[in-house]
Amino acid sequence: MNMPSPLRIAGVQMDVKIGDVAANRAAIVGQMSVAAAEGARLVVFPECALTGYGFESREEALAFAEPIPGPSVQTIESQCAKLGIAAVFGLLERDGDRLFNACVLVGPSGVIGSYRKVHLPFLGVDRFADPGDRPFAIQEYEGLRIGMHICYDGAFPESGRVLSLLGADVLLLPTNWPTHSECAAIHMIACRAMENVVYAMAVNRVGEERGFRFIGRSSIAGPNGEILQSASPDAEEIFYAEIDPARSRQKRLIRVPGKHEVDRIADRRPEFYTELVRPKQPQD
Amino acid sequence: MNMPSPLRIAGVQMDVKIGDVAANRAAIVGQMSVAAAEGARLVVFPECALTGYGFESREEALAFAEPIPGPSVQTIESQCAKLGIAAVFGLLERDGDRLFNACVLVGPSGVIGSYRKVHLPFLGVDRFADPGDRPFAIQEYEGLRIGMHICYDGAFPESGRVLSLLGADVLLLPTNWPTHSECAAIHMIACRAMENVVYAMAVNRVGEERGFRFIGRSSIAGPNGEILQSASPDAEEIFYAEIDPARSRQKRLIRVPGKHEVDRIADRRPEFYTELVRPKQPQD
Repeated sequence: MNMPSPLRIAGVQMDVKIGDVAANRAAIVGQMSVAAAEGARLVVFPECALTGYGFESREEALAFAEPIPGPSVQTIESQCAKLGIAAVFGLLERDGDRLFNACVLVGPSGVIGSYRKVHLPFLGVDRFADPGDRPFAIQEYEGLRIGMHICYDGAFPESGRVLSLLGADVLLLPTNWPTHSECAAIHMIACRAMENVVYAMAVNRVGEERGFRFIGRSSIAGPNGEILQSASPDAEEIFYAEIDPARSRQKRLIRVPGKHEVDRIADRRPEFYTELVRPKQPQD
Repeated sequence: MNMPSPLRIAGVQMDVKIGDVAANRAAIVGQMSVAAAEGARLVVFPECALTGYGFESREEALAFAEPIPGPSVQTIESQCAKLGIAAVFGLLERDGDRLFNACVLVGPSGVIGSYRKVHLPFLGVDRFADPGDRPFAIQEYEGLRIGMHICYDGAFPESGRVLSLLGADVLLLPTNWPTHSECAAIHMIACRAMENVVYAMAVNRVGEERGFRFIGRSSIAGPNGEILQSASPDAEEIFYAEIDPARSRQKRLIRVPGKHEVDRIADRRPEFYTELVRPKQPQD
């Protein structure tokens, strides 16, 4: 198997206008151009970057939901084709009568894959959304193995672990972290990267929406848990990093040959983890 | 059920003399007195605090291993009885021909519980130790539910998660983190506390041993992932915190009533986690 080449990734920490899909879509398209001009081949946007997050009812949110693919995906696809890049962005997905908090990976030839948020907090539109109904899965773009999940999913170590066991090189986490999410922003991404020996990237939004303030602090960490780039708590900005699959696929870390070697995947002992998959009991 | 009272815990970040059990045991006994005088009811010491860690052969290490209970446990037990406290410390455990990297919770009436390190890095004495053969389990002291694990175990999110699902109020992680463990020291403890809504404490050692330097930075975090106390990278010191089981048992966090509520345990979706317990395949 040939090792894929390193790929330059961009995270777009942006503000979002709730309910103004046209404006948000135009901002996404514009920032894709900026990032592509800086050499990015994959550009990642926040959770619900297309729609906003803090809806007060299911009906209000459904009015801004789209199928995947749908009109906005087609617009992003055209921009991907023009720029020769791929993008990940958050949106509300309508599927018949159902409403999902979703994100989608779009490339020059259309949808590569999408994801429906599995873990839903009681917060914003997630109060009214349907829980994700599909297993965690890996998507590929230019040989890079991408594991998508969304915001609150990241607080469950199982999410990133499952994606990593399935082969992720990079965990992408579009978020809408509000206040009280400081630990996630400051510590969690580095920990997820370290424990799984992968790249881990959170792209959060900034700004305020219906009484919630979002805390920015987007970041990307490398497979040693080292923070490669991080963004401010309150400004719109784009940040960049190189993802090298040769690093995320070398799980055995040789610190001192013959004296200090670790492999946080091979050294797992699943026979001691059965409690993790025990079905929830009524009293739980 | 009555909620246990808050309990003051101490972590003793210390240097250790490899192979000098008498000196290390005397240091442990002395620091127990210091911590008890400051009001601590539970005092936690590093991994292999009794023996040192960097042994070069199984035979060399076995010479310093003891049964549990054994002579050193009896000495600590006497000190616990005198002071009216409990202690957790790391040691090498001999059980017949077997050698385990272990830790033990000792109270005024003797051994409350012990733990044998499940995840072994290729490093120091762990190169020659037998892998832990017992499931993760909770120990109780004065109503506080204690989940013990050791050093490298902490890098596996499954360890702390299983202990938390079993009811831990606090995850105790005696460690011997050497260089290259900076992410664990700086980010991991806060993340483990946040994701499990528990207290999480790492007690590391300082000093050098056979070419390895240990990085200190012991810490304890609270159930929001907030760092309560942390120690220096290179000095012997004792740090203290209050553990309040009322906080670790209130898993539903109500940030804004009716608008922002999360429960990182009840919101788990185990049906999506089956990959975590898949037996390792030959090609893994």
